[in-house]
Amino acid sequence: MPIKNRFADLHEEITGWRRHLHENPELLFDTPKTSAFITEKLKEFGCDEVVGGIGRTGVVAVIKGKTDTSGKVIGLRADFDALPILEATGLDYASKNEGVMHACGHDGHTAMLLGAAKYLAETRNFDGTAVMIFQPAEEGGGGGKEMVDDGMMERWNIQEVYGMHNWPQAEVGSFAIRPGPFFAATDQFEIAVEGKGGHGAMPHTVIDTTVVASHIVLALQTIVSRNVNPVENAVVSVTSFETESKAFNVIPQHVLLKGTVRTLTTENRDLAEERLKKLATATAEAYGATATVNYIRGYPAMVNSDVETTYAAEAAASVAGKCEDAPLVMGGEDFAYMLESRPGAYILVGNGDTAMVHHPEYNFNDEAIPAGCSWWAEVVESRMPAK
Amino acid sequence: MPIKNRFADLHEEITGWRRHLHENPELLFDTPKTSAFITEKLKEFGCDEVVGGIGRTGVVAVIKGKTDTSGKVIGLRADFDALPILEATGLDYASKNEGVMHACGHDGHTAMLLGAAKYLAETRNFDGTAVMIFQPAEEGGGGGKEMVDDGMMERWNIQEVYGMHNWPQAEVGSFAIRPGPFFAATDQFEIAVEGKGGHGAMPHTVIDTTVVASHIVLALQTIVSRNVNPVENAVVSVTSFETESKAFNVIPQHVLLKGTVRTLTTENRDLAEERLKKLATATAEAYGATATVNYIRGYPAMVNSDVETTYAAEAAASVAGKCEDAPLVMGGEDFAYMLESRPGAYILVGNGDTAMVHHPEYNFNDEAIPAGCSWWAEVVESRMPAK
Amino acid sequence: MPIKNRFADLHEEITGWRRHLHENPELLFDTPKTSAFITEKLKEFGCDEVVGGIGRTGVVAVIKGKTDTSGKVIGLRADFDALPILEATGLDYASKNEGVMHACGHDGHTAMLLGAAKYLAETRNFDGTAVMIFQPAEEGGGGGKEMVDDGMMERWNIQEVYGMHNWPQAEVGSFAIRPGPFFAATDQFEIAVEGKGGHGAMPHTVIDTTVVASHIVLALQTIVSRNVNPVENAVVSVTSFETESKAFNVIPQHVLLKGTVRTLTTENRDLAEERLKKLATATAEAYGATATVNYIRGYPAMVNSDVETTYAAEAAASVAGKCEDAPLVMGGEDFAYMLESRPGAYILVGNGDTAMVHHPEYNFNDEAIPAGCSWWAEVVESRMPAK
Amino acid sequence: MPIKNRFADLHEEITGWRRHLHENPELLFDTPKTSAFITEKLKEFGCDEVVGGIGRTGVVAVIKGKTDTSGKVIGLRADFDALPILEATGLDYASKNEGVMHACGHDGHTAMLLGAAKYLAETRNFDGTAVMIFQPAEEGGGGGKEMVDDGMMERWNIQEVYGMHNWPQAEVGSFAIRPGPFFAATDQFEIAVEGKGGHGAMPHTVIDTTVVASHIVLALQTIVSRNVNPVENAVVSVTSFETESKAFNVIPQHVLLKGTVRTLTTENRDLAEERLKKLATATAEAYGATATVNYIRGYPAMVNSDVETTYAAEAAASVAGKCEDAPLVMGGEDFAYMLESRPGAYILVGNGDTAMVHHPEYNFNDEAIPAGCSWWAEVVESRMPAK
Repeated sequence: MPIKNRFADLHEEITGWRRHLHENPELLFDTPKTSAFITEKLKEFGCDEVVGGIGRTGVVAVIKGKTDTSGKVIGLRADFDALPILEATGLDYASKNEGVMHACGHDGHTAMLLGAAKYLAETRNFDGTAVMIFQPAEEGGGGGKEMVDDGMMERWNIQEVYGMHNWPQAEVGSFAIRPGPFFAATDQFEIAVEGKGGHGAMPHTVIDTTVVASHIVLALQTIVSRNVNPVENAVVSVTSFETESKAFNVIPQHVLLKGTVRTLTTENRDLAEERLKKLATATAEAYGATATVNYIRGYPAMVNSDVETTYAAEAAASVAGKCEDAPLVMGGEDFAYMLESRPGAYILVGNGDTAMVHHPEYNFNDEAIPAGCSWWAEVVESRMPAK
Repeated sequence: MPIKNRFADLHEEITGWRRHLHENPELLFDTPKTSAFITEKLKEFGCDEVVGGIGRTGVVAVIKGKTDTSGKVIGLRADFDALPILEATGLDYASKNEGVMHACGHDGHTAMLLGAAKYLAETRNFDGTAVMIFQPAEEGGGGGKEMVDDGMMERWNIQEVYGMHNWPQAEVGSFAIRPGPFFAATDQFEIAVEGKGGHGAMPHTVIDTTVVASHIVLALQTIVSRNVNPVENAVVSVTSFETESKAFNVIPQHVLLKGTVRTLTTENRDLAEERLKKLATATAEAYGATATVNYIRGYPAMVNSDVETTYAAEAAASVAGKCEDAPLVMGGEDFAYMLESRPGAYILVGNGDTAMVHHPEYNFNDEAIPAGCSWWAEVVESRMPAK
Repeated sequence: MPIKNRFADLHEEITGWRRHLHENPELLFDTPKTSAFITEKLKEFGCDEVVGGIGRTGVVAVIKGKTDTSGKVIGLRADFDALPILEATGLDYASKNEGVMHACGHDGHTAMLLGAAKYLAETRNFDGTAVMIFQPAEEGGGGGKEMVDDGMMERWNIQEVYGMHNWPQAEVGSFAIRPGPFFAATDQFEIAVEGKGGHGAMPHTVIDTTVVASHIVLALQTIVSRNVNPVENAVVSVTSFETESKAFNVIPQHVLLKGTVRTLTTENRDLAEERLKKLATATAEAYGATATVNYIRGYPAMVNSDVETTYAAEAAASVAGKCEDAPLVMGGEDFAYMLESRPGAYILVGNGDTAMVHHPEYNFNDEAIPAGCSWWAEVVESRMPAK
Repeated sequence: MPIKNRFADLHEEITGWRRHLHENPELLFDTPKTSAFITEKLKEFGCDEVVGGIGRTGVVAVIKGKTDTSGKVIGLRADFDALPILEATGLDYASKNEGVMHACGHDGHTAMLLGAAKYLAETRNFDGTAVMIFQPAEEGGGGGKEMVDDGMMERWNIQEVYGMHNWPQAEVGSFAIRPGPFFAATDQFEIAVEGKGGHGAMPHTVIDTTVVASHIVLALQTIVSRNVNPVENAVVSVTSFETESKAFNVIPQHVLLKGTVRTLTTENRDLAEERLKKLATATAEAYGATATVNYIRGYPAMVNSDVETTYAAEAAASVAGKCEDAPLVMGGEDFAYMLESRPGAYILVGNGDTAMVHHPEYNFNDEAIPAGCSWWAEVVESRMPAK
């Protein structure tokens, strides 16, 4: 296949970019070097338009095909922020920014999309417009939302969007995708239980928040075990339980519970929030305590649209021979915001036998670069075939 | 001591009465033979007044002392109803009324008070008035309440009341008493939990009452563990948990919980009722179910008044050489109603090494008769000493 | 499409069979009339072989194609037992067997497969062998297992098997299917908790099984909420909680819990059983009680094999224009045993806007007959195309 | 009454000592100034023997009566350590040792016993020997145990011991006492739950210690609600629940529970410890976690012996006109160790309408001094009456 051959030539160069990014990781929106590097490269490639500062520090580049009789505009998105993790890979190109690390492979994502941009800007072998989207702050900052809110979709008239993530423990360069809900909505909650503190030997003078909060922890199990349709999927985890005091003899006035909720549909997200609030407040009330629930909605569920998923899978099959069915993922992904705004699809590319993402020994696998770049090119060229 | 000697002569006769009563047990208020037997004996003894039909089937007899310069009127109460238990003693005077049995020793209580009546009617060696109170329906029917509500205390101007119960596993003829709360208030509750039934494989379509009621069972543990002052005493037991259906695949619409609450003070009784209702209703509400609580107050706590307890203990010591400190008893006793109406005291008399009350092999110990009768006589003679 | 036209002619006749079956429902393996009716029809159609008594009362018929160069043998299965439900449809052909009802549409399944048999026996327009499998005791009796255990697959050298079920609330004659796990493994459990009974006022003398069992109910929620992979699916429902006694004052010695477990993979089935047993026994042990778990494996999960599902879906699309993605079903289906034995697929055919199966007002929709029969014929003719 | 008159004269002097001690509080065994002050005074009074360094920093003084025909030796004990509390009384003699405060009235206890020593050393109006015991480290250090372990009882042949504590909210100078268990055994526990940590979205990969520990908290409620005899008394409070991490997305590997257990008999203490250990370990085991229980026995229950309680109450009545029945106290008192070693009694003396002990605004009430001193003197003179 010509595409792969094309990227074989670029493999070393793209690998160099990837390692440069790896060595210089930056967090969330605070990405001056990374944004500048991307911008510089895109300009160097001869993109028709390169605009920074989208969604604070995102970068957008436009590459027009040889023709544009289709009027189509397709967005391709890579994320480029790193994580606050102390790298333990021992690589010679390990992070020079101590305590910050590309432990999720965004360095690879960005390098691959840069590679695709270079190829597409050179070949322009399609009928329409490709928009390269480089996004900051995927790791909790909502960079995807910021770019959408910044009017990106309208400004460049983007009609479809595609995204990609590497996947450890899957064969290097293999692909997997699924239509419909794919990554979970990732919400957080705090439940502040207030009772009445007192001496451990005088329980009748207190409202024992530890007992109340323990009942709430068990009550919350029933959201998944009883309320969510068993053919659907959700997680409710209480991850932190902290009594105000740590003494042996003092019954604490306050307990703070924290946790996370993962759902794949709006219905289950609403259901989980409603149930969580009611279970916590009414259980507390049973004991004469109060529970104040702060339910913080994070990323929405990331939902691949059916038609675009088929296109994406076909592009993957043309690159790798086949495309696997991906499992549901209970993690979150802020490409969800772009898929709320436009139809599109998100695909996984195998990273081989590496440590899991967010692990201090994780590293993006440069052997995945040809497949990843080729998929980007194939999506553009097959969705907007050259006249 | 002359009193004991006096009853030594009567021991055989009283034993005969006791065994006659044992052979002919009757339930609650349905006591025609027993009431008639008591009435006949009391008249035979030459009591000044013998009146039946008090509190439906109770019998009251008045015995005046040689003098009445004191104006004192003291009530002595025995209960005479039996239990719906199939006797398994194998006694030659075992119950002839199958399925009904004097398994709580009320036969002995009544025989002893008859013995005291015979003695007092003969000797009248006191300055005041003794009122013999024979009560039906102690075993759950509230005969004590009926007699009080019938105006007995006012009609005979009773100023103090005394009661006695035999106590298995304590030395025959020994005595034990305690001032203040002695027997518990005995309340019952039903909690009807209504959710939404459905198929066991479709929990999302139901409100699972079994889960809700299980949470309530655990929540109710906190009344005793957290709400009642730990230097005080209470019991909350859920004794019955019944799902509406018993199928493997049907989540039931209804669950019925039943149980008992035992407390020793009005404050704890109110507290337990309030907490039980709130815990049940708010816990159910947490799950979208409803809990309807039927809290049924039974006998109040039986509280010995201080001064009369001292008199009763001194009378016991004069009979038996000493009087022990009795423990709290979490069972109920409807003499509580009489002690709510008038000051007085309730005492335990040892029944020796016998089966426990309410056991089909229990039997009243006739060896306790002299001590019991003597105590009655001593209470009268020491509280209203002859001039 | 010729197939549908063919069945248009047979529609009235097949409808007659269906209503005859509806009027004469029989339970589990006790199906003399139904088995005889099926046998008679199959012989009437001129099947090459008709054998009764397979899996007790199942019936198998062989129809050979015009040629058999393929050597292929395909099994088509319908179930024919009814339910112990009192019919409330008011139909003129309602059950004459009071308290027994075709409330799951097996009358329709059987009539449709008979229709297909008539058509195939007449046309024989395929290259290979079709085996018609009529199964008793799908409703809990394991008739499918019995037929497999009886050596049916080997005896007729069946290589693939297909099954079909009607689906209320889906468009009449539409189809839906999914590859992989489709219907759940349906297990049951009993947990006998034994403690020590006693008086409700004396909790210190008992081991309170109601409290223990309530803890177990809550503990079991964690199998689904914590142990099963949240991207997979399972149900654990406690459906019955029965204390040995129902009195207000007696703490029961025994509690019996019952319930159901639904899983879709062997791993989750094993996990649920292991967790359920451990949670019950160790929780009981914590309180000094014992829990004896009787875990009864019912039908295994019904898993459509990938290739045959594709064939089945294509056959459906050729009949109905398209084939929908079916959802997971947490109910069980004993065709699972046949699919454990041979590759194959199970499909749903829409029953229109009717009551749900197992409801006393449910009725099979005769308008689904042409689509159902056509699918059977199409499966045979497309999997073993005529030479 | 002569005794009171005697102390009326000394009231001002004793008050001076009390305020001096209040101004110079010292913690636990680190009491150089306080021990020195006590020693100096005792020597000044002309005690027959004054020995420091008993139980590290305790002081013992011997005062012989005019005669010793009885051979009796009675110990009188006061405690003298302060608390790590920042005083907020605003008194002109407030603590000069910042963060350390006599917030439990040990200054008063010591001053009163010094007053009694002065009186007894002067008057010696008894037949036997009085031993003044000044104890450090009552507030958690076990000074009472240290003195007993140091051989004090044997060295001075002490036969009976008496102690006293002030009681806020009771009339100044009134007395209250009870025979038998009086103050609770005060134990502590730590339960370390270890499971398996992981990501909040992947509960199937973890053993969720928060859920396990919540179950344990509820399980522990049953010790008091079910296991302890309801006519007896106990407290089990979980006071601290700390998950190892506090993040929203991390299920913690460890949870640490802490709490306190209060009991009044050895049987209930053993029962509570046994139940707590079993409930924690078996509940953890149910979930595949482990619970490691560190049960730390603190002070034993303080039990007044019957005969000595009667003497103490009579002495109190002779001073104050009467002696009240004291309630059970679920707090601890290390005089328990001395009462384990020798018969004796502990009495409460009213402190009037003051803040509760351990409150930063608490102060010992100097108006209680005559009653307290008089009781000490009366105990000595009435137990060992002068010839």
